[in-house]
Amino acid sequence: MYKVTFKFESGEDIIAFAALGENLLEVARKTNVAIDAPCSGNGSCGKCRVKVVSGELQSEKTRHISDEEYADGWRLSCVSTVKEDVEVMVPDIASAYRSRMKVADLSSPEEIKIFEQAKSDMLEAGIEFYNSFCVQTVNMDEPTLDDTMPDNERLARAVCEVGGYESAHLTFDVLLKLPDVLRENGFKVKCVVNEEAGRAVIYDVVGADEPCGAYGLAIDIGTTTVSALIADMMTGEIVAKASSGNGQIRFGADVINRIIESQKPGGKKKLQKAVIDETINPLIQQMCAKTKISRSQICRMCVAANTTMNHLLVGMNSDPIRMEPYIPAFFATDSVEARDLKININPRAKIVIAPNIGSYVGGDITAGTLASAIWSKPEFSLFIDLGTNGELVFGNSDFLMSCACSAGPAFEGGDISCGMRATDGAIEACTIDPVTMEPTFTVIGDEGQKPVGLCGSGIIDVIAELFRCRIINPKGIFVREGKRIRHDAYGMGSYVLAFREDAGSVKDVEITEVDIDNFIRAKGAIFSAINTMLNSVDFDISMIDRVYVAGGIGSGINMKNAVNIGMFPDIPLEMFTYIGNSSLSGAYAILLSDEAQEKVHEVGANMTYLELSTTPGYMDEFVASCFIPHTDAGLFPSVVQADEELCK
Amino acid sequence: MYKVTFKFESGEDIIAFAALGENLLEVARKTNVAIDAPCSGNGSCGKCRVKVVSGELQSEKTRHISDEEYADGWRLSCVSTVKEDVEVMVPDIASAYRSRMKVADLSSPEEIKIFEQAKSDMLEAGIEFYNSFCVQTVNMDEPTLDDTMPDNERLARAVCEVGGYESAHLTFDVLLKLPDVLRENGFKVKCVVNEEAGRAVIYDVVGADEPCGAYGLAIDIGTTTVSALIADMMTGEIVAKASSGNGQIRFGADVINRIIESQKPGGKKKLQKAVIDETINPLIQQMCAKTKISRSQICRMCVAANTTMNHLLVGMNSDPIRMEPYIPAFFATDSVEARDLKININPRAKIVIAPNIGSYVGGDITAGTLASAIWSKPEFSLFIDLGTNGELVFGNSDFLMSCACSAGPAFEGGDISCGMRATDGAIEACTIDPVTMEPTFTVIGDEGQKPVGLCGSGIIDVIAELFRCRIINPKGIFVREGKRIRHDAYGMGSYVLAFREDAGSVKDVEITEVDIDNFIRAKGAIFSAINTMLNSVDFDISMIDRVYVAGGIGSGINMKNAVNIGMFPDIPLEMFTYIGNSSLSGAYAILLSDEAQEKVHEVGANMTYLELSTTPGYMDEFVASCFIPHTDAGLFPSVVQADEELCK
Repeated sequence: MYKVTFKFESGEDIIAFAALGENLLEVARKTNVAIDAPCSGNGSCGKCRVKVVSGELQSEKTRHISDEEYADGWRLSCVSTVKEDVEVMVPDIASAYRSRMKVADLSSPEEIKIFEQAKSDMLEAGIEFYNSFCVQTVNMDEPTLDDTMPDNERLARAVCEVGGYESAHLTFDVLLKLPDVLRENGFKVKCVVNEEAGRAVIYDVVGADEPCGAYGLAIDIGTTTVSALIADMMTGEIVAKASSGNGQIRFGADVINRIIESQKPGGKKKLQKAVIDETINPLIQQMCAKTKISRSQICRMCVAANTTMNHLLVGMNSDPIRMEPYIPAFFATDSVEARDLKININPRAKIVIAPNIGSYVGGDITAGTLASAIWSKPEFSLFIDLGTNGELVFGNSDFLMSCACSAGPAFEGGDISCGMRATDGAIEACTIDPVTMEPTFTVIGDEGQKPVGLCGSGIIDVIAELFRCRIINPKGIFVREGKRIRHDAYGMGSYVLAFREDAGSVKDVEITEVDIDNFIRAKGAIFSAINTMLNSVDFDISMIDRVYVAGGIGSGINMKNAVNIGMFPDIPLEMFTYIGNSSLSGAYAILLSDEAQEKVHEVGANMTYLELSTTPGYMDEFVASCFIPHTDAGLFPSVVQADEELCK
Repeated sequence: MYKVTFKFESGEDIIAFAALGENLLEVARKTNVAIDAPCSGNGSCGKCRVKVVSGELQSEKTRHISDEEYADGWRLSCVSTVKEDVEVMVPDIASAYRSRMKVADLSSPEEIKIFEQAKSDMLEAGIEFYNSFCVQTVNMDEPTLDDTMPDNERLARAVCEVGGYESAHLTFDVLLKLPDVLRENGFKVKCVVNEEAGRAVIYDVVGADEPCGAYGLAIDIGTTTVSALIADMMTGEIVAKASSGNGQIRFGADVINRIIESQKPGGKKKLQKAVIDETINPLIQQMCAKTKISRSQICRMCVAANTTMNHLLVGMNSDPIRMEPYIPAFFATDSVEARDLKININPRAKIVIAPNIGSYVGGDITAGTLASAIWSKPEFSLFIDLGTNGELVFGNSDFLMSCACSAGPAFEGGDISCGMRATDGAIEACTIDPVTMEPTFTVIGDEGQKPVGLCGSGIIDVIAELFRCRIINPKGIFVREGKRIRHDAYGMGSYVLAFREDAGSVKDVEITEVDIDNFIRAKGAIFSAINTMLNSVDFDISMIDRVYVAGGIGSGINMKNAVNIGMFPDIPLEMFTYIGNSSLSGAYAILLSDEAQEKVHEVGANMTYLELSTTPGYMDEFVASCFIPHTDAGLFPSVVQADEELCK
């Protein structure tokens, strides 16, 4: 065995041991070292670069590493194997998807705005924000020789009396601790109670003087990012909120790679462990530690996630999702409790999963559609969720249709050489001077934060600006020269946003023709999906009344630029609304409102799914959309007009 | 650390390591070596004798070990500590309570007689033997691109169609394995289904060609012995039956010692582990191995046990049971599933616990009363359960009352120097020649089995015969001399049934005055309880129409002798029926019949509990009963008459 030391820019070291010939990326995965490998280790994305500090690796040269870089020690992990003790440095760009946990500061109104909005939208749509959880104060007589009722009946009767229930059921954990809690507190207690199927279910019991609440956990399990919040079930108040990278990321950036990984021996358990033990439970632990909430008082959990994430969470065989005829094990299910998944909340908490409606439109979309409230209004709305994939819903209070398009992870920074999530170091907005071609950008993070890469909204801006300044042509090819424009040995052009010396990373922050091409295909997939879906029901773009944009692309998204590059339909800008993580705000609504829970099932059941790959004309439409803004300029009149004005 | 080797007569060795000064009985307990210590290790019962084979122990001398025996290496474990490497031999008498597992041979009609009887008694009493478990064959269409219903809905709909249910719920394990089972079997499966609260609950799913049944587990958890059976829920057929010692026995012979032990740090877990991991799960494993039944197809479990055993099984604090005002945590409970206790059957199997009615009258008695069917008849019946304690129920279809008496473990061989359970080597019946005073006895086991000790029925016979032959007086004191009658240095008399050379043990099989005194107190407790209970409702013995005797005393019980020593009321012998382990036959009825399950709760709720210790006159009655047969000879007219005839 050889010793492999992973060194981080933070100064942290992680040590692993590996056999001769073991693949370095595999060693990193085994050791829970997150090295970003969106292509799942087949050498195509070039993101898993590490720098050898001491020792040497057996490694292949690839187009992602220049001769100079190779000489400098840079290697791609996925094509490197261990042959001796080695120390490698993992740059921030390679670990941009790392499970960095972030607990939100709830004093910022920004953090809870989307939930308040979702709640007020629900109320406006006639959905009552009610569930039957409550905390009861229960004072019992102490037993005597003449009053020998056993503890469980004593509690059940008292709870029925206080709450007006017909009967009461004690969960096992309540039964187990009951004799001690009653006697230590003189038979004066508080209970967390919910009414289920006509009876009171007692989830927790504590002494009357102890803090006691009824809490719920809402969670959005994205392919890339997991976001969670804890809410007070009675008041709806959000008491904690946190997010982190999905621990499964090291097994592939997209759902297909995850499913393939889960099919290997032990794979289902491994993927489940990555999302539960390494992601969800630590989030819960952090939130509970911060708020001093007892885990046993988190009594309901609502999950919004795509179909594959739902299946991997439950630990099931998800292979049928990707194999014709693409059948999930479940859309909705009432079979799962927290204890089944070893999620560290009340073991009897029901896990409500926002319903999937197909293999490629999941609970994140039904929850998001719920939150957007488009199902409640007569106007025709388009809901666009830009996650690791792109999903669309179009309709109104009379009908809803949805489709998924293989936009890939570009909107979250995947498939882009300097792409990253919308976290510290990401360029989130950019303008370029048409004359000097010098960029001006804003970087997420504290003042002085140097740029590390580009997040989705930043990429949109850069491409829109490069096009506006005629630095690239409609096909994304560089057509001007300058100090920031380079061509490599293969002739591939790129534009440097920040040279290495100004960057917070180990290399230039740039955007290449390959990146632009990837992004054009991604935005083309979105726009062609919109157009195809509308055409399939004899609508056209001008008939869209509202557009709701959701997802991890970031609140910094410049809608005008997104229209300019031909990603979003060319309708008046005031029609666009960015609604943030609608998957989480939908989960929040479902968690707290029994009516919303019914409604999301209704929304899911009534949503027609359009399979684009078998829809006539989609491929033509897609090809036509892979230009800036589109081969059919008539679809983007405002862009054409602006361009004409610029030329005047 | 020193090495302690426990050697058994079977030739088996168990090796443990102990610190200087560690108590030998504690070392044995830690190592799961069952050394019988009914007094829980306070030096009073003298049963935990072991023989030092090599090395030496630090040990006290006690009255239980003669000088000769001490010189020979005999020591009491509970007063011995480790001081060097030592080998000790554990004689069979010391391990008579060992967890020997016995799987029944169901080809013997004797084994299933009591269950058939219970079933026919139930049917006669108007209790339908019905539950809603069934096995369904479900053939589904395979999904296609046009029929994309998810797996769980597909199964649920098909089950509803086949069984005529309104809705169906999949248990978690069914959901988890569903995609594989469906696809490996061409969507042709069998399901184990039960109807609960108006919906079908699917407990298991297997391929259509695989064996599939709906099974249930009935279990009687006695303080000393645990007996279990697996029954086919649809036909009622008993497919396996087994018993073994309760693994908790090494923590004390009676419930009070067990409770005290459970109060030590880690005690609740330790006691729970002893009965579940060491007793119940091995029984299940054996029965499943023999019958090839899948554990996941055992979908209901019914437990009959005393209140303390129920609490220790659930893993709860049972201390309040023994502390005034003696309040159990539960009489009945619907809070427990197999997975809560890690019992190795279907994790979602509900555990139905036959209701306790007080701290000292438990589910074994309500189940036994159910099985006796005394609640269905107009005649006045007395139900006597001779377990590790004695419990009584008296009444008819109009009323039922119960009481518990501290008879102690004598009926199961506890508190008797050569006492043992009714297993191989136990003298179960005996006569004594009035002239030669020579005994003739039958021993349980294969032909040629030498006597090792005395079980309950044997003790009754020996005492009755000793009294009939006037070898002992009404106070149990030896009043004749002979070669089988001895007096030790303290003047204590004893009668030798088998000298060491004829015995299957390391010492004489004998009965001492202390044993007889213990037994007289036990039988006195029973009889005085009967008389006190009857008097409390203005009945007398002559008004008893039937007596049902149940419990581990053994089917060999000689009712006439039990009357002769003043243990049972002096009514015509044809009124007595031995109904065996009514706790298990009651559990069997509750398992299989939903109506019986309702009925046992009704029986429990309607049963009045008489607390003897606070009933006026009980102590006087008890003292008067501590003679053979009784100080009031008028209560035993047939005994007096027989005695007079003998004297003629």
